[in-house]
Amino acid sequence: MIESKTMLRVRYSETDQMGFVYYGNYPQYLEIGRVDALKSVGVSYRSMEESGYGLPVKDLVIRYHNAALYDDELVITTRVTKMPTNKISFGYEIHRGEDLIISAQTTLFFMDASKRACRPPASFIENMKTYFN
Amino acid sequence: MIESKTMLRVRYSETDQMGFVYYGNYPQYLEIGRVDALKSVGVSYRSMEESGYGLPVKDLVIRYHNAALYDDELVITTRVTKMPTNKISFGYEIHRGEDLIISAQTTLFFMDASKRACRPPASFIENMKTYFN
Amino acid sequence: MIESKTMLRVRYSETDQMGFVYYGNYPQYLEIGRVDALKSVGVSYRSMEESGYGLPVKDLVIRYHNAALYDDELVITTRVTKMPTNKISFGYEIHRGEDLIISAQTTLFFMDASKRACRPPASFIENMKTYFN
Amino acid sequence: MIESKTMLRVRYSETDQMGFVYYGNYPQYLEIGRVDALKSVGVSYRSMEESGYGLPVKDLVIRYHNAALYDDELVITTRVTKMPTNKISFGYEIHRGEDLIISAQTTLFFMDASKRACRPPASFIENMKTYFN
Repeated sequence: MIESKTMLRVRYSETDQMGFVYYGNYPQYLEIGRVDALKSVGVSYRSMEESGYGLPVKDLVIRYHNAALYDDELVITTRVTKMPTNKISFGYEIHRGEDLIISAQTTLFFMDASKRACRPPASFIENMKTYFN
Repeated sequence: MIESKTMLRVRYSETDQMGFVYYGNYPQYLEIGRVDALKSVGVSYRSMEESGYGLPVKDLVIRYHNAALYDDELVITTRVTKMPTNKISFGYEIHRGEDLIISAQTTLFFMDASKRACRPPASFIENMKTYFN
Repeated sequence: MIESKTMLRVRYSETDQMGFVYYGNYPQYLEIGRVDALKSVGVSYRSMEESGYGLPVKDLVIRYHNAALYDDELVITTRVTKMPTNKISFGYEIHRGEDLIISAQTTLFFMDASKRACRPPASFIENMKTYFN
Repeated sequence: MIESKTMLRVRYSETDQMGFVYYGNYPQYLEIGRVDALKSVGVSYRSMEESGYGLPVKDLVIRYHNAALYDDELVITTRVTKMPTNKISFGYEIHRGEDLIISAQTTLFFMDASKRACRPPASFIENMKTYFN
């Protein structure tokens, strides 16, 4: 299993007139979480993209538990619990202190330079095997 | 049942460096769809908020089928298929011509001026009854 | 001179907790205005980009006169008053009815596929000459 | 004079299909810079807002020098060089290492709970006097 934690502070631009973080800004936070989870095991999303791979999102589920507010310090916990195949799934929880703000899942797939679904880079699979046996 | 259709054109700011609409921009599109669906039956979200009610999102599910591109003309089809209670659920499909771009669901709940869950305004329920018998 | 008018409606996602359109969302509106201004004279920004040109922004000035609110219907007036060279300047005003919301200017330059500053496509210059004599 | 430095990392959502940070995302970065500059002298924008004051932007100028890219580590340098009155002006530079990405200025004014221009809180002025003599 892979697990990482990322801290972020809510920006003013991310609030809406209800006074909460706009519900549509959480996917941005999730992306920050999963990039960090990959970095934590030595995988650079930037390098992967520079070598011609992409990781578009296939499915997104978010459950909103509590509202986050401007200037809140949030912690994103990101987990990969299953060995990636042509797809990779991430689970997320975002907390403010003890309060659960949202929980979420995303599934992404590998895409090659011609923008077709493909297998992940061999080096990626080798790397992942050390975390899932 | 309530059903509405909304046209929108993809903005440059909504693309990402993969050359697609960023996956996290679709919740904005869904919100445009549901505001229009409510307008189509005479409910102004703006007025509802001005009279002290809010409609925060509780659950979001998006399934991504095809990528949308800059300057694409998209059509959001929004449906309410069940009589709202303290919650209201919307189903969505976004198409570019015949192509299905995403399908999605959201569930929202009514919130009063003190930011607590509440019943919807009586006038809203009366209005809805004419669409769901 | 080139002048175009574009209508847009303020999205909920574009508000902030002050209850106004977030100041940083206006550059998106300006982009919509200038794409429409070019379209109005037969220039497709999308096609120009597909043929290898880009138009990055060099300078941006915005003066905020009045706050725009959720669901407001805004009109963007976009003008090109000087024959473009390697640069093109746009002036903008955004109104809600009679009220001036913002006025703005941007200067953009032409960039080729290797991401270097360049001359505009010859066809673009020919087209422009018919508007500036 | 007040000066602060803030580090941030470019998010994927902040890029556009040109492969650069979208020009309209820099105002968000500037806001992060000025909130940090105020924090560095003991002023919490969040508390100021909770006590009924707002700080809307009056003027924005951005000069774009170089493109920032996904995952770049940027440093925002924010400065207040003149004693605030009913207005406060900030100057900014954003660098990636030695490269200047943008330079910018904003002027903001104080607004009271009734959304009218007003004088800043007395405590704010007292605090500022220690930095500008």
